[in-house]
Amino acid sequence: MRERLITLISSRNWERFIITIIIINAITLGLETVPPVMDSAGWFLEAFDQFILGIFVIEIALRLYAHRLRFFRDPWSIFDFTIVAIALMPTTGAFSVLRALRILRVLRLISVVPSLRKVVGGLINALPGLASIFVLLMLVFYVFAVMATKLYGQDFPEWFGDIGKSFYSLFQIMTFESWSMGIVRPVMEVHPWAWAFFVPFIACTAFTVLNLFIGVIVSAMQEEHESTAEADRAAIHTETGLVLAEVRALRAEVAELRKERETG
Amino acid sequence: MRERLITLISSRNWERFIITIIIINAITLGLETVPPVMDSAGWFLEAFDQFILGIFVIEIALRLYAHRLRFFRDPWSIFDFTIVAIALMPTTGAFSVLRALRILRVLRLISVVPSLRKVVGGLINALPGLASIFVLLMLVFYVFAVMATKLYGQDFPEWFGDIGKSFYSLFQIMTFESWSMGIVRPVMEVHPWAWAFFVPFIACTAFTVLNLFIGVIVSAMQEEHESTAEADRAAIHTETGLVLAEVRALRAEVAELRKERETG
Amino acid sequence: MRERLITLISSRNWERFIITIIIINAITLGLETVPPVMDSAGWFLEAFDQFILGIFVIEIALRLYAHRLRFFRDPWSIFDFTIVAIALMPTTGAFSVLRALRILRVLRLISVVPSLRKVVGGLINALPGLASIFVLLMLVFYVFAVMATKLYGQDFPEWFGDIGKSFYSLFQIMTFESWSMGIVRPVMEVHPWAWAFFVPFIACTAFTVLNLFIGVIVSAMQEEHESTAEADRAAIHTETGLVLAEVRALRAEVAELRKERETG
Amino acid sequence: MRERLITLISSRNWERFIITIIIINAITLGLETVPPVMDSAGWFLEAFDQFILGIFVIEIALRLYAHRLRFFRDPWSIFDFTIVAIALMPTTGAFSVLRALRILRVLRLISVVPSLRKVVGGLINALPGLASIFVLLMLVFYVFAVMATKLYGQDFPEWFGDIGKSFYSLFQIMTFESWSMGIVRPVMEVHPWAWAFFVPFIACTAFTVLNLFIGVIVSAMQEEHESTAEADRAAIHTETGLVLAEVRALRAEVAELRKERETG
Repeated sequence: MRERLITLISSRNWERFIITIIIINAITLGLETVPPVMDSAGWFLEAFDQFILGIFVIEIALRLYAHRLRFFRDPWSIFDFTIVAIALMPTTGAFSVLRALRILRVLRLISVVPSLRKVVGGLINALPGLASIFVLLMLVFYVFAVMATKLYGQDFPEWFGDIGKSFYSLFQIMTFESWSMGIVRPVMEVHPWAWAFFVPFIACTAFTVLNLFIGVIVSAMQEEHESTAEADRAAIHTETGLVLAEVRALRAEVAELRKERETG
Repeated sequence: MRERLITLISSRNWERFIITIIIINAITLGLETVPPVMDSAGWFLEAFDQFILGIFVIEIALRLYAHRLRFFRDPWSIFDFTIVAIALMPTTGAFSVLRALRILRVLRLISVVPSLRKVVGGLINALPGLASIFVLLMLVFYVFAVMATKLYGQDFPEWFGDIGKSFYSLFQIMTFESWSMGIVRPVMEVHPWAWAFFVPFIACTAFTVLNLFIGVIVSAMQEEHESTAEADRAAIHTETGLVLAEVRALRAEVAELRKERETG
Repeated sequence: MRERLITLISSRNWERFIITIIIINAITLGLETVPPVMDSAGWFLEAFDQFILGIFVIEIALRLYAHRLRFFRDPWSIFDFTIVAIALMPTTGAFSVLRALRILRVLRLISVVPSLRKVVGGLINALPGLASIFVLLMLVFYVFAVMATKLYGQDFPEWFGDIGKSFYSLFQIMTFESWSMGIVRPVMEVHPWAWAFFVPFIACTAFTVLNLFIGVIVSAMQEEHESTAEADRAAIHTETGLVLAEVRALRAEVAELRKERETG
Repeated sequence: MRERLITLISSRNWERFIITIIIINAITLGLETVPPVMDSAGWFLEAFDQFILGIFVIEIALRLYAHRLRFFRDPWSIFDFTIVAIALMPTTGAFSVLRALRILRVLRLISVVPSLRKVVGGLINALPGLASIFVLLMLVFYVFAVMATKLYGQDFPEWFGDIGKSFYSLFQIMTFESWSMGIVRPVMEVHPWAWAFFVPFIACTAFTVLNLFIGVIVSAMQEEHESTAEADRAAIHTETGLVLAEVRALRAEVAELRKERETG
């Protein structure tokens, strides 16, 4: 029984069925943002959404039954489980914002479609190699955020009033959005030396982010290069192997010749 | 007759003639945007434009006659055909906007000049490899657009009023244009936690677009590398081949020596 | 005694102790930016900060005693020394801005945590290779800043009033921030040909900065490539070495055979 | 006499002298932008500037005399000549803007300092390979500029009034500066479908510029790779050469053995 279930939920048809369900759900959830459609068919869309949620719950339940606790070893299963769990949380009162998270279910496409899964897996695999450079970026941000709060917090409470606001404003500055006209020029009218704070910040973060990017590029190239180099070495090994075999055969022949001479 | 036509329209001179016509047409279409020129010589420019369009129609007709249905197998021919077809569509009433599309004829330069054709071909060839990462980007966009419409649509109808507007605003945010001062700061005045929606959106899309770029770079390098590696392997193969031939000749000689000894 | 001190301050436990102290200090310095915390526990935070500064001074003193003048040969030691020295400078009167620099102490994490040290070391090592391209960028900036001051300084004193302001405005333009709507369009209303100054500036700096980036990428790849190529060559050397040894043994054998023949 | 002149102007000391002169000139030209300095020592700076210009004229004259017409075969000489020629042009009346171009003399540093010369040479060498992609970009720009002028020129004369203004505005849009809040959103209020014109424009140009960048990166890598591959192949060639020599020597020995046998 469990065996057959595993066969079923691993089959191409089941995969196609789930993909279809997710795409239909994506469309109906999209339609819910169109006011005229909501006015005329809102009750149907909501009921249909509950119905599809039901299918998802059953699917997760089947997979849980089939794989037991091994289910939680696969990160993609945990991803699916979390997304369905979010959809099951109460959406009344203070949690009404969670209603908007129902659309996250569309992200289940990533775990179902193999090519998307591969791409996202690749992106996530690139992350650990970037951990220390990311910690460095956070450190730079923290140091500058504390300094900005102390230096400009009193005069510009809206931008640097507390450490959270400073973090947000520095992130904006890092993306170059209105950094000069919007923030630094006004600050310079009160603190004329403010450029000596913000220009180094921009230089530091731009250089660090650049190195984050280069890290990703180089590690991607390295992986690709490694496999080519592997093939190269294998080709050389095969070629040299041919020569070696030939030389060894020759040596055996000469040894034979010598033995014949001695015995002859 | 058809043979001679194919020879004619494949000749260097015909190519040069078409390139000249397109460049002249580009200039006259450009001149039509200069009001004083239009006032004094507008009727001539329009007539000349019709004349050149006539040449293009005849050229396409000749190629259709020469290559018959094989004409539609070459994507560049379809490109040329579409551009001329657009120019032949009615430009009165509701279609008056199509008049502005006449300038697209200048793009025929791409299909006629070999070096441009190669560059654009290269760009287009890079696209299929990016398909799954592009689907992923669209998915992220769709999820965030639906959420933005639900969360901020009522308070900021101009930016997130419907899913189309949300798509456009999120595209603007992805390009970093006025994302903070123009959009997120005003939204945060009503929804103080809006940064927890927009900053992850920026991080997600920036990281995905970065990977799109890296995908293009790595595949371009890979292609180039592949050809170098091929040449390397061929060189090694030739070198080792020399050694192998020498060793084999030697082995034959030793075998000869042994035979002589046995028979002698 | 000095030997034991060196063993102590090189131990993993000491490293962990210093990391812990720095992180605690980072948190307390961050808390100092939160007004309610400062009102209730400000005196404690300041006292605690003095206490931690004391630990840092003692640590530097111990390292100075342990390593003597060799202490100043390690750039990271100089980095630590400078940061603690800044914290010891007077923070009253005109120097009150130095109080904000106390947070720089958090940067000592970089010199203590090996992985951060490696990343920052890597970034800094990339710099010398970029020196000449950086000089070029400075040259371009200087030339354009002098010209901008002469050409637009009188009409737009706020942006190009002196060479310092021009440098800042050109840096802003290089980051694309409000370059057109904020600066060049207003300038063009007085000097209609201003685009012929700013667009080449953007093209020059964008191209130079791009080359700065490419320089970093290529040198990073080169390093990585070098090591792979080294391994490749070593592998080939080993393989060919095998063949060579075999052939030499064979030659010895043939020589032996010939000697036997002559003597026999 | 001419021989000795060539030796003189090729010497390290002459190079150092010219570099010193250029740097001093750069400083004095920079000082001319500081109003208080101009008030007190303006006459001296101007006189000094004329003096240095005299040195440059003499230097060019010496090089012209020394190298005769071969002078104009070196692009860097033409560069030096042009810059000095600009400084000699009349700067009164309509040409007063040329006074600001005197600072261009500082760029002579590029042609004198070898490392800068190498960097700029590298940048310029990368350009021809980018020619066809640059032509493509120009083509895309021209087509979109003509269309923008026709479609939006009447309603937004300031941005798209003629083809020059359209070119400038599209360049601004390509750099993402205020493209949405500043230009496309206002345009969309009159032409609601304007996004269907500007978003594809952004996508086209961003993709083309990206490929321009990748072209530069890949060609830089290729060059570097080529040299490594060359070294690799040379190493393999040497190694295989050793084996080949050994095998050939062996073959000669066996042939000798055979001859001895036959004659013996």
